[in-house]
Amino acid sequence: MDLELQVAVAKVSKYAVSESGDTVETIERPHGGLSLVLVDGQRSGKSAKAISNIVARKAVSLLADGVRDGAAARAAHDYLRTMRSGQVSATLNIVSVDLGTQTIVISRNSHCPVLVVQGQEGALHLLDEPSEAIGIHPRTRPVISEIPIAQDLHVVVFTDGVLSAGERVGQRLDVPAFVHEQLPLCAGETCARALADALLNRAVELDQGRPTDDISVVVVSVVARQQPDTVRRLSVRFPI
Amino acid sequence: MDLELQVAVAKVSKYAVSESGDTVETIERPHGGLSLVLVDGQRSGKSAKAISNIVARKAVSLLADGVRDGAAARAAHDYLRTMRSGQVSATLNIVSVDLGTQTIVISRNSHCPVLVVQGQEGALHLLDEPSEAIGIHPRTRPVISEIPIAQDLHVVVFTDGVLSAGERVGQRLDVPAFVHEQLPLCAGETCARALADALLNRAVELDQGRPTDDISVVVVSVVARQQPDTVRRLSVRFPI
Repeated sequence: MDLELQVAVAKVSKYAVSESGDTVETIERPHGGLSLVLVDGQRSGKSAKAISNIVARKAVSLLADGVRDGAAARAAHDYLRTMRSGQVSATLNIVSVDLGTQTIVISRNSHCPVLVVQGQEGALHLLDEPSEAIGIHPRTRPVISEIPIAQDLHVVVFTDGVLSAGERVGQRLDVPAFVHEQLPLCAGETCARALADALLNRAVELDQGRPTDDISVVVVSVVARQQPDTVRRLSVRFPI
Repeated sequence: MDLELQVAVAKVSKYAVSESGDTVETIERPHGGLSLVLVDGQRSGKSAKAISNIVARKAVSLLADGVRDGAAARAAHDYLRTMRSGQVSATLNIVSVDLGTQTIVISRNSHCPVLVVQGQEGALHLLDEPSEAIGIHPRTRPVISEIPIAQDLHVVVFTDGVLSAGERVGQRLDVPAFVHEQLPLCAGETCARALADALLNRAVELDQGRPTDDISVVVVSVVARQQPDTVRRLSVRFPI
């Protein structure tokens, strides 16, 4: 079966704050595939950005060296804890598409669950085992799940801006239900993109257009091959 | 004037070689904006990939630390030359969108020119000052150009697979003429994407569907703002 990997990231800052405290980076894995690193630094704005930047940088540089995900997450924790004397926390998610093992590896250091959707019926599975943010306690470890790469697989990762969206008006977002509802949107070339944009838009909508926190959404989809060519494509867009 | 930044990367391997020897990575700049690193490792396949990977990794990790582009390029050169005893070369391009200085900074360590298209008329400017690949000679330096960020600015960077495309059939690609011809394609949300895909497709076509070398194209476009929201978006797609 010919498959295609799609990754989509959508990110917005807290209302009236110019800089998002969330950082998302992608990096090629030296043995094939790629890794995504999503970090939410404590608080928002410049100070949060500085935190998420150093954590993402450390994780990305280790992953690029071929360090396994669990070790990269532990190292990012130790590094932040050392740099900031255990005073500052961050959540860290690493999603790796490992073409060596033909699996998607999901590392969580975050209270936010990760949503896994599998198969044509869109069976939902929530990765929500208790997991600790990095930077504070000694020897913090990630919670790691590994899922075989297969057609119609979607992994949805987000920061807690999605969970708190709508809190102000007493209307929370039921992420699994929402994603399930949106699955028909997942068509062709823009599957992951459509899911990520829909979830982010819904969160911003619940915050009445004024996000009460930084919000970031990452979707990794494995779908039937859409493109006839073997071209690898990367796109970035943002207002400047 | 509200502007939008668009980045598009399109990459294909040499025919019948599973792994491209070119590596492209993006990284956030700690003071705002992003950098793109494009490396073409000597030869093709696994050995070329190993080279381009270590060069890209070194450059990306320095840029993420806030190191200036010229110093990152010099360091990547010194590193490769030390690691491989001056026996192995690579071309290195860094394109940075620096929101601190409001400029696009282009570093070339490659014989491939970089194309700059400016203004509504699409005035073409070729950055083709002699420039040396990294890894071989002592104290190699990049050739650096800096261009103010303005509407309707396009920077087109590519590896030499574009220059050699069609050689086999005695039909070379006139990149400036081709890009100028394609500018009307640059519309709305998909401007950079359309330009990058068109240039890559044309090169592959001239190689009669069987690229004689790895081919990579990077387009950075600054256009009038298309999106009503302030969302930052990143997308990746490739067959697996």
